[in-house]
Amino acid sequence: MGHVVGVIGGGQLARMMIAPAVELGVELRVLAEEQGMSAALAATGVGDYRDQDVVLAFAREVDVITFDHEHVPHDVLRAILAAGVPVHPGPDALQYAQDKLLMRAKLEELGMPQPAWAAVHDETELQAFLDEHGGRAVVKTARGGYDGKGVRVVSAPTEAEDWFAALAEFGDGAGSRGGALLAEELVDFTRELAQQVARRPSGEVVAWPVVETVQRDGVCAEVIAPAPYSSEKLIEVAARIGVEIATGLGVTGMLAVELFETSDERILVNELAMRPHNSGHWTQDGARTSQFEQHLRAVLDLPLGDTSPREEWSVMVNILGGPAEGALDDRFAAAMAAHPSVKIHTYGKAPRPGRKVGHVNAAGDDLDDLVYQARAATAFFQ
Amino acid sequence: MGHVVGVIGGGQLARMMIAPAVELGVELRVLAEEQGMSAALAATGVGDYRDQDVVLAFAREVDVITFDHEHVPHDVLRAILAAGVPVHPGPDALQYAQDKLLMRAKLEELGMPQPAWAAVHDETELQAFLDEHGGRAVVKTARGGYDGKGVRVVSAPTEAEDWFAALAEFGDGAGSRGGALLAEELVDFTRELAQQVARRPSGEVVAWPVVETVQRDGVCAEVIAPAPYSSEKLIEVAARIGVEIATGLGVTGMLAVELFETSDERILVNELAMRPHNSGHWTQDGARTSQFEQHLRAVLDLPLGDTSPREEWSVMVNILGGPAEGALDDRFAAAMAAHPSVKIHTYGKAPRPGRKVGHVNAAGDDLDDLVYQARAATAFFQ
Repeated sequence: MGHVVGVIGGGQLARMMIAPAVELGVELRVLAEEQGMSAALAATGVGDYRDQDVVLAFAREVDVITFDHEHVPHDVLRAILAAGVPVHPGPDALQYAQDKLLMRAKLEELGMPQPAWAAVHDETELQAFLDEHGGRAVVKTARGGYDGKGVRVVSAPTEAEDWFAALAEFGDGAGSRGGALLAEELVDFTRELAQQVARRPSGEVVAWPVVETVQRDGVCAEVIAPAPYSSEKLIEVAARIGVEIATGLGVTGMLAVELFETSDERILVNELAMRPHNSGHWTQDGARTSQFEQHLRAVLDLPLGDTSPREEWSVMVNILGGPAEGALDDRFAAAMAAHPSVKIHTYGKAPRPGRKVGHVNAAGDDLDDLVYQARAATAFFQ
Repeated sequence: MGHVVGVIGGGQLARMMIAPAVELGVELRVLAEEQGMSAALAATGVGDYRDQDVVLAFAREVDVITFDHEHVPHDVLRAILAAGVPVHPGPDALQYAQDKLLMRAKLEELGMPQPAWAAVHDETELQAFLDEHGGRAVVKTARGGYDGKGVRVVSAPTEAEDWFAALAEFGDGAGSRGGALLAEELVDFTRELAQQVARRPSGEVVAWPVVETVQRDGVCAEVIAPAPYSSEKLIEVAARIGVEIATGLGVTGMLAVELFETSDERILVNELAMRPHNSGHWTQDGARTSQFEQHLRAVLDLPLGDTSPREEWSVMVNILGGPAEGALDDRFAAAMAAHPSVKIHTYGKAPRPGRKVGHVNAAGDDLDDLVYQARAATAFFQ
């Protein structure tokens, strides 16, 4: 191919782009936050992604810039574009993944189904939202949250008073838009779903089948693809939501749309991620094109690959670091021997408690057995 | 995993180990022959694999040594072992892949089916072999041949006189065993097959289904997996031959056994390769465990992965460099757009005429369509 893709951020998402980059003949360069990160093999630079000079020096040597995370500041993104280097997803799209208030307003404009929400600037406004929505609500910081951080279920405004105080003192991190928290209706969902789509700059959009995600403590624990017990209508609606958001927000690269399915059969948009996402790791072994390969194709504006599943069912279970330090190596062989049909993916990260250090994929036609095999293999590491 | 695998040789076989190494959490280091080779991403050293000091310095920093090719001299292999670093495959096994006369004698000892053969030291002995076998024979140099090089079909001893002269002057490259060529019966085969097996040092051996290989000009052009129109007996016999050779020769890592199927339904061993092999590239997209992942597992003595096919049929077609220089990049997007179901693998090599620069894999249940899609995608590059 001869193309050079620069990835800002050296975590496991960048790491998992290495394998498809090699196969596609794409040169991958990674600007890592520090030495020895998950994507160390492709790390050609180490530096602060908030430092415009560092990022520009990295960007000038590549054909396109993309990301392992969504935290690169808007002015740095603008500077890369001004230097003539394409950025995918671009800052106009990425702002909606960086700011949940902007995202809610934009989805409303696009007519996407979502929980009732409001920007609440103080405890009085939060109390009004609570009064309107049955006395409980989800409160989120507009910026900076992930994996359950920056999210609280509250039944009184005082439960968010520290966040309001921080807003008053420091702002929301974006400067100009004034400080507000996002209050959302506490949705009575029966399960959580995720829709993966990819869009290339010239407009082509493709969707994988919607998946069910199981969260534990605010962190994705398991994924089943496609989402079991799903009507054709559900699958179609979820895909359409993904495609409309990708198009409406001008996303380039991978987009993950986290969804609630409610007891009254509605689908509501929960969160967006504009990059490969944990809920799409099943595609590495379960789909004809993985989200990592597709992300590279999309940011290079290459034709997108076939998103159809390779097997009837795929299951992904995350490996979280357990209390035992350094135990990953020893247990690998035992897990492989006991569960030869699964694929164990590791991230080259030290196993600290609760930290995502790998995942296990299983694919086949017996869903119960796949769930068993994937969980049992994972258990060796925890 | 925390293991470090050192690969001697920086070609596409080393390159294709990078992707599974990343997923397995194995650190791959490559000693490349020169800068900018196919496996450049993992190349940590550049140097001559015949230079014992160079190789030893490389080997001392890894947990196990393996290969991209079979050309590392015996004394260098012995020196690595003497330094306490495991070598897989080891020199005792590798000698049979390095010397075709040794291989024929060992297979005879193991009772493996193979063409009639003889070590011929001069034109008189070759004439005697020709007289015995219908006036035509295949003559091979014992050492150094690949991809059709070092192989001739002859009907008179004079057609090999330059090789006999070279033997007399330079020896066969191995020193002590005296100079001889290998003469083989010209087998009336109906097709060529290849059997992939993997063996780990502690003894476990696994086999993939036997495949059909189509050669053009002595170079592998296409592979169909499993070999079409094969009886259960054929599949079983081929697998057993592979397993017995791997065990009998003490191979560790991947072994490819190239086979002839004759019109009278015999299977005869043609050649051996003790590494991932072109005839096994289909496993990347068509089998639950690819030969590259399996090779890493095997040389690290880890439990071997499931070798079952992911689809009913898999087809691999090589991309050979055509007359147009540098055309690979431009044609990639067009090939992807026209054939979204195939997987295009590239080696990062300049496309010189006849040089293997990539391959296309297709997998599914309609064999005719797969062959069409894979060939048509390949045609974009040639």
